[in-house]
Amino acid sequence: MWQPDRSSKQALYQQIAAYMERRIFYGEFPPGSILPSERKFAEQINVNRSTVVQAYEELRASGIIESMVGSGTRVSKYKWGAPKQTPDWLQYLEGGTVVQPNQSFLRTIREELDTGRLLIDFASGELSPDLSPNEAIRLLLSEHSLHEDLGYDNPQGYVPLRQALVSYLQQYRGIRATESSILITSGSHQSLYLITQRLLSPGDAVAIEDPSYYYSLPMFHSAGLRLFRLPVDEKGVCPEGILSLYREHNIRMIFVNPNYHNPTGRVLDPSRRERLLDVCGHLGIPVVEDDPFSLTSFAGNPPPSLKSIDVNSTVLYIGSLSKTVASGLRIGWMVAPQSVVNRLTDERQQMDFGLSVLPQRIAAQLLSSDHFDRHLQRLRQELSHKRNLLIDALQRELPGEVSYTLPQGGLHLWCKIKRPVDDGRLLEEGMKRGVVFVPGSVYGSESGYVRFTYARPQPDEIGPGISKFAQALRAVVK
Amino acid sequence: MWQPDRSSKQALYQQIAAYMERRIFYGEFPPGSILPSERKFAEQINVNRSTVVQAYEELRASGIIESMVGSGTRVSKYKWGAPKQTPDWLQYLEGGTVVQPNQSFLRTIREELDTGRLLIDFASGELSPDLSPNEAIRLLLSEHSLHEDLGYDNPQGYVPLRQALVSYLQQYRGIRATESSILITSGSHQSLYLITQRLLSPGDAVAIEDPSYYYSLPMFHSAGLRLFRLPVDEKGVCPEGILSLYREHNIRMIFVNPNYHNPTGRVLDPSRRERLLDVCGHLGIPVVEDDPFSLTSFAGNPPPSLKSIDVNSTVLYIGSLSKTVASGLRIGWMVAPQSVVNRLTDERQQMDFGLSVLPQRIAAQLLSSDHFDRHLQRLRQELSHKRNLLIDALQRELPGEVSYTLPQGGLHLWCKIKRPVDDGRLLEEGMKRGVVFVPGSVYGSESGYVRFTYARPQPDEIGPGISKFAQALRAVVK
Ligand SMILES: Cc1ncc(COP(=O)(O)O)c(C=O)c1O
Ligand SMILES: Cc1ncc(COP(=O)(O)O)c(C=O)c1O
Repeated sequence: MWQPDRSSKQALYQQIAAYMERRIFYGEFPPGSILPSERKFAEQINVNRSTVVQAYEELRASGIIESMVGSGTRVSKYKWGAPKQTPDWLQYLEGGTVVQPNQSFLRTIREELDTGRLLIDFASGELSPDLSPNEAIRLLLSEHSLHEDLGYDNPQGYVPLRQALVSYLQQYRGIRATESSILITSGSHQSLYLITQRLLSPGDAVAIEDPSYYYSLPMFHSAGLRLFRLPVDEKGVCPEGILSLYREHNIRMIFVNPNYHNPTGRVLDPSRRERLLDVCGHLGIPVVEDDPFSLTSFAGNPPPSLKSIDVNSTVLYIGSLSKTVASGLRIGWMVAPQSVVNRLTDERQQMDFGLSVLPQRIAAQLLSSDHFDRHLQRLRQELSHKRNLLIDALQRELPGEVSYTLPQGGLHLWCKIKRPVDDGRLLEEGMKRGVVFVPGSVYGSESGYVRFTYARPQPDEIGPGISKFAQALRAVVK
Repeated sequence: MWQPDRSSKQALYQQIAAYMERRIFYGEFPPGSILPSERKFAEQINVNRSTVVQAYEELRASGIIESMVGSGTRVSKYKWGAPKQTPDWLQYLEGGTVVQPNQSFLRTIREELDTGRLLIDFASGELSPDLSPNEAIRLLLSEHSLHEDLGYDNPQGYVPLRQALVSYLQQYRGIRATESSILITSGSHQSLYLITQRLLSPGDAVAIEDPSYYYSLPMFHSAGLRLFRLPVDEKGVCPEGILSLYREHNIRMIFVNPNYHNPTGRVLDPSRRERLLDVCGHLGIPVVEDDPFSLTSFAGNPPPSLKSIDVNSTVLYIGSLSKTVASGLRIGWMVAPQSVVNRLTDERQQMDFGLSVLPQRIAAQLLSSDHFDRHLQRLRQELSHKRNLLIDALQRELPGEVSYTLPQGGLHLWCKIKRPVDDGRLLEEGMKRGVVFVPGSVYGSESGYVRFTYARPQPDEIGPGISKFAQALRAVVK
């Protein structure tokens, strides 16, 4: 059992509050769940009851927990619930601190995969290696001297790549960007990091989706942000709660992944998109649009980006080649107002002195060549084929026991298990049988879900993988 | 003229102290220079004299300025002045914040270079493109499928590269490292960043060399560190001041670049190395050894690393391929205790989700191949040839007007101008004539120096470049 550190300068009640916040944050106490009583918890960790009372008071003040007459303390469910202005960008250019990340199920899965044991992998959120355009990259490397003149490059990103992205963004995402409004980053991840570290300050409140991209969570936490969750349903994230979150908690930014959302695979409904931009435009709250999956769209024409209909410059747009070309290239980008790009460029120069130039050259060449369109066509076909194999396997192995929205793009299927299930135990049983997937509770507050990444396993592994999964499920629910 | 922000929450005197510290830090007031009187400064920025008195008091308390009876306030010259223990690594694993960088001369130079105008470049601190092993890289790319399976990689760095570095470190630097004690970073720069952000806390005092690597300065500043400078003379950095810095300011870390130091090109004397490790070992202060230049050693056998004689695990060792292979690959590494590597790995995963895997594969292959040794031989020859051309040109163009220590390795020559000179005007005159170099005042407190990077220009540009420089110098001193 955790114990507060009595030699620390931080007050005991603060340590306890921080500890409980972490546990809540990492899903040990989902929204609506009951916390241990003050008395009991105080006994467990050997402090006075009044210290725990004070810690809970702290959490209550920040809206994380709430007391209910006669029935203890529970984790808040955050009740969710629009004049126009451009965000005050300059005001966002202040502060940030650093803390450590954390994993749990994901670390277990990673360790299991690292053993080298043969596993069917529905967990790694990326393409299988054969889905990357390896042959095109080989050709480009042999035709062009991409490896020559490998000197320090522009910290904002290799200019020809930014030029190629101007066309890419116009053609595929309806976004009119300029070279100088694009910052190249190490995947979308580094764009998110720079935003959380440089545009927000510790203590700032932000709204994120529930569920949402796992690896953004420790990053938000490190930046000292207070997180409020907006539920995601069939039509994507619900913008209803934004106004009241703004009034109650003064949220300063909203993070969304509108197309083929990770982990649910869902697409944000057009009227909700308008509503979202409307509300945020009125309140002057920037929306961060994280858009790594759009080009996988099985039907060919991905839903438009929020940025393409953003008239108030409310949106910071983030893209990546990780989910369409190769995640290990580490090529991502942000489209943002010039002042933001300039400041974040300075920041990133301090962090890493710019991205390696070789992958940037490959990306620039690839995006400007015919290879890219051909690659996308093949990618979409293969991905929809793998999705179909997964659906077939689920229907065969678990008829009536699971439900899901059929993803029309992206890498993931979000699968509800109809009977109640402990997803940690399910993972354990799965690993015993040689299959890994991600327990849904990793991503947010909804329980009873599993994320299957159909993009990762080989086609002939999908059926056997789901049959192992079905066995694991039977071992857990019986 | 700067003015304090009266709407800020920060007290006026604190704003003023922070502002003056920045000006001092960026060289506007070199050590020993006199600050404006409290009365005059108060008038200029429209505050009460007592507020400036309070601000100066603050700076005095942190040892940055000192008052002299009857002659005002001046920037401290920092007077520099040993039982053993391993640094308490765990204690270093806390805190950090983020601020923006700054440039001045360097930004001017960069902008000038970016215009595309033909300039002879003694300013960019890197190899000319032809000195990189382009042919070897081309061969490796055509022989191996380095571009296949570009999935997310280990955030600590590509395992075969860490393995190759274990041999490299043993063979070339006498360091016994293990795969798990190596963290691959985006150049040495990211290693320094992770150290300053993650192992130190705002307000911590550290000792650095005077002069020192320019781009580390904004990074230190961002981390909120208080900097104390140890002078570098013919024998490298003087360890004498460490003890008193420790006593007076409780310095928590020391940053040194012992071999072919940037910008002076000097090598730390063997007895000073022992003394440095001795003192720091006694005090338990970690020494960060920044070692990017050693393998350029013209004589072939570089001076040993501090890390190779470090019995107390006092040294965090940082290396890079930037100065020996190519800076745009962004391959660097840190050798550190496992606990430090683990924590910094988590931190870097949050920042960028790991380095691009392609340059790491190229580096791994290159280091494990015969190409590498052959490349080093050619590199050393060419660099010493360029150094000779520079020396010849200086002797021809400016006999008796400049002095320097002859560098035995590295990329830079640190050139003293014997007559007093305003190095900013010298740069201006140089740029008019088509030559760029770095004014010495960028690096620290010594004035009247210029850094020439002989590695960067082509051999046939060196003579003409120095002749332009000589004209510029005559325009300034006459
Ligand atoms: C929604 C979302 N955003 C961002 C990322 C980060 O990806 P990268 O940094 O590789 O672009 C991921 C990766 O899984 C993701 O799913
Ligand atoms: C002394 C020193 N350290 C570190 C660096 C950073 O180099 P890199 O990040 O490219 O390895 C430099 C670059 O000039 C340097 O001179």
